[in-house]
Amino acid sequence: MKKRKISNVIIRRLPRYYRALDLLYRNNTERVSSSELGNLMGVTASQIRQDLSCFGEFGQQGYGYRVDHLRLAVRRIMGMEKQKSTVLLGVGNLGRVLLMNFPFEENAFSLDAVFDTDPVVIGKKVGRWTVRGVEELEAFLMENSVDVGILTVPKASAQEMTDSLVKGGVRGIWNFTNTEVSAGETIVENIHFSDSLLTLGYLIST
Amino acid sequence: MKKRKISNVIIRRLPRYYRALDLLYRNNTERVSSSELGNLMGVTASQIRQDLSCFGEFGQQGYGYRVDHLRLAVRRIMGMEKQKSTVLLGVGNLGRVLLMNFPFEENAFSLDAVFDTDPVVIGKKVGRWTVRGVEELEAFLMENSVDVGILTVPKASAQEMTDSLVKGGVRGIWNFTNTEVSAGETIVENIHFSDSLLTLGYLIST
Repeated sequence: MKKRKISNVIIRRLPRYYRALDLLYRNNTERVSSSELGNLMGVTASQIRQDLSCFGEFGQQGYGYRVDHLRLAVRRIMGMEKQKSTVLLGVGNLGRVLLMNFPFEENAFSLDAVFDTDPVVIGKKVGRWTVRGVEELEAFLMENSVDVGILTVPKASAQEMTDSLVKGGVRGIWNFTNTEVSAGETIVENIHFSDSLLTLGYLIST
Repeated sequence: MKKRKISNVIIRRLPRYYRALDLLYRNNTERVSSSELGNLMGVTASQIRQDLSCFGEFGQQGYGYRVDHLRLAVRRIMGMEKQKSTVLLGVGNLGRVLLMNFPFEENAFSLDAVFDTDPVVIGKKVGRWTVRGVEELEAFLMENSVDVGILTVPKASAQEMTDSLVKGGVRGIWNFTNTEVSAGETIVENIHFSDSLLTLGYLIST
């Protein structure tokens, strides 16, 4: 399949395509029309047809899309066929929420190690991970190929930890620190609670 | 100030403008040029000038922007001059992270009540809130004007809780359930961890 340049808006919709198709797949649905898929996703049928045309030829006029084929294509486009590794920095409340509840494997990621600076938690088990001291991070990143660093540290150490991750060669940073970090060429994806609530505040005020 | 139609992309940048300006304001900075503000936000100076022109006339050629004026203007545009009230449903791990750590007041929101279905936590204090049973939600929403419902319940009860919030007249739902909810005219803002990580996975795969 040829990869064309995909717009940022479609990239943001890809995970929603995947979730909708994965749900249909798990329910043993064989085919789905663009309007059915649109209903599931809250998007118009013509939007669906337009998006999917960016990924290649999937639909058959009047027959809809083969769920298994389309799901697999979206998995491939998203790079989900190869599991990616992550490490998590900061075993505070939010770090623990991710450790205990987030389905890394379902999303084609593995969580390979967790780090903290607090001597009280270092060496302790949290879920199935033994917390490592952050001074071990550099060596860990040298010995293991880690794709993504997850930042659940306090704001004050966000940039320092980013620098260590970038130096250690991660390709992406999943940033929960509610602050902007500079990571050079490394891609940063932010989960920013305040920005999200402020946006909601704006939308309900207008 | 006349409100013009503001594009979705700019709406998503508004909170970042606010954070950058608020930081400058707290540091007693009087003026900022579009290139300085751009550097802070990782956006070009011409993008800044273009965005701000949507909100009205602020800059003075060669003098930059008055930080206090611009900060206040962004606060007004975002509807932050009036504090909004929220209730939180679901005092699990993620709910507790928000209760204990999220700066509602800084973002011009108040958290007025928290609800759960678990008899073990109902009546108990979490932070400064006493957890209420979810059966009290309807009456609470009738007696109090609540702007936003925060959903940190399990996926399985996401739609039912959404229905209760919509029926109770909230104007917005801040949805952490990692699932899509139907809320009619009520505005839903999603914090979707999986979609975010999948997007990052895509971006580092290409």
